[in-house]
Amino acid sequence: MAKKIKIGVLGASGYTGSDLVRLAARHPNIEITLLTANSHAGKPMGKVFPHLAMLDLPDLTTIDDADWSSVDAVFCGLPHGTTQKITSQIFQKYDHVKIIDMSADFRLRDPQGYQNWYGLEHSAPEIQKQAVYGLTEHYREEIKLARLIACPGCYPTATLMALLPLAQAGLINVEELIIDAKSGVSGAGRGLKELALFCEAGEGMSPYGVGYHRHMAELEQEIGKASGQEILVNFTPHLVPMSRGELVTAHVKMSDGKTVDDIRGELEARYKDEPFIHVLEEGTLASTQKIRGSNHVVISINADRIPGRAIIITALDNLVKGSAGQALQNFNLAFGLDETLGLEQLPLFP
Amino acid sequence: MAKKIKIGVLGASGYTGSDLVRLAARHPNIEITLLTANSHAGKPMGKVFPHLAMLDLPDLTTIDDADWSSVDAVFCGLPHGTTQKITSQIFQKYDHVKIIDMSADFRLRDPQGYQNWYGLEHSAPEIQKQAVYGLTEHYREEIKLARLIACPGCYPTATLMALLPLAQAGLINVEELIIDAKSGVSGAGRGLKELALFCEAGEGMSPYGVGYHRHMAELEQEIGKASGQEILVNFTPHLVPMSRGELVTAHVKMSDGKTVDDIRGELEARYKDEPFIHVLEEGTLASTQKIRGSNHVVISINADRIPGRAIIITALDNLVKGSAGQALQNFNLAFGLDETLGLEQLPLFP
Amino acid sequence: MAKKIKIGVLGASGYTGSDLVRLAARHPNIEITLLTANSHAGKPMGKVFPHLAMLDLPDLTTIDDADWSSVDAVFCGLPHGTTQKITSQIFQKYDHVKIIDMSADFRLRDPQGYQNWYGLEHSAPEIQKQAVYGLTEHYREEIKLARLIACPGCYPTATLMALLPLAQAGLINVEELIIDAKSGVSGAGRGLKELALFCEAGEGMSPYGVGYHRHMAELEQEIGKASGQEILVNFTPHLVPMSRGELVTAHVKMSDGKTVDDIRGELEARYKDEPFIHVLEEGTLASTQKIRGSNHVVISINADRIPGRAIIITALDNLVKGSAGQALQNFNLAFGLDETLGLEQLPLFP
Amino acid sequence: MAKKIKIGVLGASGYTGSDLVRLAARHPNIEITLLTANSHAGKPMGKVFPHLAMLDLPDLTTIDDADWSSVDAVFCGLPHGTTQKITSQIFQKYDHVKIIDMSADFRLRDPQGYQNWYGLEHSAPEIQKQAVYGLTEHYREEIKLARLIACPGCYPTATLMALLPLAQAGLINVEELIIDAKSGVSGAGRGLKELALFCEAGEGMSPYGVGYHRHMAELEQEIGKASGQEILVNFTPHLVPMSRGELVTAHVKMSDGKTVDDIRGELEARYKDEPFIHVLEEGTLASTQKIRGSNHVVISINADRIPGRAIIITALDNLVKGSAGQALQNFNLAFGLDETLGLEQLPLFP
Repeated sequence: MAKKIKIGVLGASGYTGSDLVRLAARHPNIEITLLTANSHAGKPMGKVFPHLAMLDLPDLTTIDDADWSSVDAVFCGLPHGTTQKITSQIFQKYDHVKIIDMSADFRLRDPQGYQNWYGLEHSAPEIQKQAVYGLTEHYREEIKLARLIACPGCYPTATLMALLPLAQAGLINVEELIIDAKSGVSGAGRGLKELALFCEAGEGMSPYGVGYHRHMAELEQEIGKASGQEILVNFTPHLVPMSRGELVTAHVKMSDGKTVDDIRGELEARYKDEPFIHVLEEGTLASTQKIRGSNHVVISINADRIPGRAIIITALDNLVKGSAGQALQNFNLAFGLDETLGLEQLPLFP
Repeated sequence: MAKKIKIGVLGASGYTGSDLVRLAARHPNIEITLLTANSHAGKPMGKVFPHLAMLDLPDLTTIDDADWSSVDAVFCGLPHGTTQKITSQIFQKYDHVKIIDMSADFRLRDPQGYQNWYGLEHSAPEIQKQAVYGLTEHYREEIKLARLIACPGCYPTATLMALLPLAQAGLINVEELIIDAKSGVSGAGRGLKELALFCEAGEGMSPYGVGYHRHMAELEQEIGKASGQEILVNFTPHLVPMSRGELVTAHVKMSDGKTVDDIRGELEARYKDEPFIHVLEEGTLASTQKIRGSNHVVISINADRIPGRAIIITALDNLVKGSAGQALQNFNLAFGLDETLGLEQLPLFP
Repeated sequence: MAKKIKIGVLGASGYTGSDLVRLAARHPNIEITLLTANSHAGKPMGKVFPHLAMLDLPDLTTIDDADWSSVDAVFCGLPHGTTQKITSQIFQKYDHVKIIDMSADFRLRDPQGYQNWYGLEHSAPEIQKQAVYGLTEHYREEIKLARLIACPGCYPTATLMALLPLAQAGLINVEELIIDAKSGVSGAGRGLKELALFCEAGEGMSPYGVGYHRHMAELEQEIGKASGQEILVNFTPHLVPMSRGELVTAHVKMSDGKTVDDIRGELEARYKDEPFIHVLEEGTLASTQKIRGSNHVVISINADRIPGRAIIITALDNLVKGSAGQALQNFNLAFGLDETLGLEQLPLFP
Repeated sequence: MAKKIKIGVLGASGYTGSDLVRLAARHPNIEITLLTANSHAGKPMGKVFPHLAMLDLPDLTTIDDADWSSVDAVFCGLPHGTTQKITSQIFQKYDHVKIIDMSADFRLRDPQGYQNWYGLEHSAPEIQKQAVYGLTEHYREEIKLARLIACPGCYPTATLMALLPLAQAGLINVEELIIDAKSGVSGAGRGLKELALFCEAGEGMSPYGVGYHRHMAELEQEIGKASGQEILVNFTPHLVPMSRGELVTAHVKMSDGKTVDDIRGELEARYKDEPFIHVLEEGTLASTQKIRGSNHVVISINADRIPGRAIIITALDNLVKGSAGQALQNFNLAFGLDETLGLEQLPLFP
């Protein structure tokens, strides 16, 4: 067996961190040697996430106690802001370590944009320049060479997977993108918030972040770049009473003369060899039930009743392809491995 | 105490019928004297809906065995198609009976439209002409005089409550209405369908009826009438893992020069004296948790990030204001009673 | 109309407090004049519980700012420990005020028992002596005369409603009571706890408090008193992914020669005139779906496969009959009103 | 790579069948060559279970059209009754085929018992004699040699895993076993039943089969055999609003002089080398969240407040270790493979 790649997971007490551990633990080339969680330092992982108690894992430690020289790659699941500081240190002192960041800290190419959306000055703008936006299927070659991979947000992953090729191909009018999004509650993280209580989020549906949500910045950056123009998007997220899963319903106006068939043709061509991206046949709709727990993405393309418009619906698991799974996929790329390693798990239904 | 009005409920074994019974049983002026459910005829209501077992109700009977001369009003919760036949008979033979129809059979003024959308010829076009569209807050005077009230669908009730005044006032561009809607599973009824199983609908979210849903017909009829032009709408419903509740996110382009404040001003003025319609203050979002189990509707108005656009979100309980509650409200109007009788129940949260 | 009774609700920002407000707001003889919630003082109730925003309620205030002279009754939904101090002050200074306590502070007649189970010395043992245990159907006459009513816990209400008459009649062996209980998540309150997060409590079932739960103390006190002997009980609660509702499955050994019919006879006789307690007919099982949101209790009696044993299952809504509803029922008794006032609401299903 | 073992799955349109496919598709030594589902014959599996659409699978066929000569093993997920007929034919005509039955048809050693519990005469009593009860950890040697493996029911698997060693060791009184069980809705199958609708099973909890449930027969058979005496058990199942997962709370009286430590010692010794069975440390409780989607079982042992009694709680995933996972584990044994192949998947949480 090949020598294993040693990884550390920073922020292992969050849902993103634990899902990374779940997947990495079954990856044939990975050895998990470091798990950090400042507030739980000293505990075994199985105490913090009992569903992982059957694994033989290192105990949780603080970031300060971490031995970076012993790891080949670091997956970072820390809150935004915190990440920059840690990443800078590792990046500058440990040339051999690749960093796969699942936080928001290096997603925006423009440090000023970061400051505008996240409310604090970017503390590592030099490193930002070397970060690659980790939307795997669209930045594969860059990711292979990167030392710092900034994995996209869950909503941007779902949205861009559908819309980026269409913007690039000039099939849609990018000036009036209506992106109505729905997410399970795990998107709110494991931190204690009233809105994430079972009794608050259960048996009901509520919008949030209407008119202003940080994921807009990524969408505008990437679609803007693809279409060659500055744009603003409507992005309207809603909280759904389910733990995992994300559904993005994009209501788009097609470019003059373009049709739903053109959209279908473009997406099918773009993704025909992708192991995780599935353009559904006509009449089949995307739903989160089709991909729960897996790294797969389903996209459905539908004619709107209003002529010249289309409805494109994408579903993914926010913790897998929307976070830890895509991070692992990027890790595979960065280390020259088969891209699907550790991600073979099929969706869990029901 | 005033003499009670005797009512019958047709289709009492469905969720709409049972919710009507739940509300009517506590109405001070109502006596429930007839309950029909062909497939359960002969059974006590408490066997079919055990949560109503504490009530003293007539046993379920077939429609054929119903004694129409003994009732003053009939609430009809039958499947579409069936309703027309029954309604015709009652309408023509029993002048004194008022009919409050919760089915789809008399909602479309144009019988041809009915045939187009429902796939069968309208069998009672003469009676259709006398039907009033029962969107209470918008057809109050007509409802007071009506013998046949066609209560709107749940989605149209939620959507029109927000958009009808705006279309009437010329504040929005009705040619590109994007109506992204979300409903709890009770909207699928109590009939046995795979998609409504707990294991299929739970822990996941799925769109349905994309590009073609019968409620489009009502929306286009009413908004078209309000704006004086024929329109087509985007109406995209989704199934949410909750039993009750409906959220409609309307993405609208405002008319030239109009602002979110204009929209707010119009809706606030329109609904300021309405007991059940609440325009939420700026920054407060509508959610189904705020109205579950009640006849209340909440509407929130939000600026879109794209200039010139607004996001208007409406929530109601699909079985109450979306069906049985609005039916009872219309009954109150038709019989000259206080409109809120039987509908005082507050939302149940959590 | 009769002069209204003025009430205050202490701890109005919890689920128990808000459900009391929901019910009391529709009570014909009640005027809510005081709402306290220290951490939310100054806010309107509708900001803390948006589902009550349509009510005209006093703003939340601190307990220190409360004017006790202006209220006739106080409903107390504070955490245990806190309650004693407040209650003492009111009890001693305001003779006219009746106190209906929904906390645990005065449920145990023996202050030493309180100290043992709650871990702190009882600070108002003199007042404890005047408290009446508010299990309405079993302490009605005492409640009518009481100034301080200690409403039972939710689990004890469900359990005792089934077992107390049987213990009194000597039909069951009280030495080996196995009480397997299941509750919705609202039982954990609105405070921020990881176990109450949607992602933790959803799509799963977990026991808690196995072998040691404070409600055991009430069960042992009341069943012990009824049977005339000191007892210990098995009480094993579980957390169920639903917001409301409680199901108690009591596995009992019958006294020698006694049968399931004896049990049925006793419970039917005991509750035949009770408006809220329903002994289900043979073959019909209790479930929380039958009583959600209401003050009703359903009890089903079943033969066990093991001869000489029975399985008695009780369901109620933990926030209504298990807390706020029973409190309001006791209020009605204490003020000489019809016991069902404000509690007419039928179960909400689905 | 080793030659693959060809398998067929009968009844592939049920939840048990589809979960077998989910697991088997990732088994390194399996090739799925036959999928039957009479009502869906001719369809691709991905149409019936869209979450498996990314797999390359044979289309569904009828049982009559199946080519048994092409398979090495058959997993049978048919309704009881049907299975016997099919199994007899395969068993008698195709010596080389091993049958792993997930139905109830061969679980009861006594054909008369089958008739008593299932209401129809056993049609293959001769074959029944050769069936091995497939509770893997307890019949491992027999399973290795078997041609027909009758996998236990989900509830018996959970219950026996905890109680069988204790009955064998004489640590518990088997005459008064109180087994209070809770299951997710997938246990009701994918067939259309009103009780399994989202609106009926959601936001509520209900017992079923109280006093009479077919899984009692297996429990009494196995515990009776282990203890050397005929017994009757209390087995009381409840339906919980979650899709997957099963929790069994066994309330047991210990044999004279035995303690909770004895129980712990016995179970720890019995399972210390088992990859899927985990005896939790003192103070840690079993919950379905800890094992969802995986083949793992967690068992917690707790002292009861009543002296001499213990509360033993077991959790598993009813579709995996309770059905398809255990079947695959038995397949591995029967074909001389590593027992954990295809079952490495970790629990999915949240």
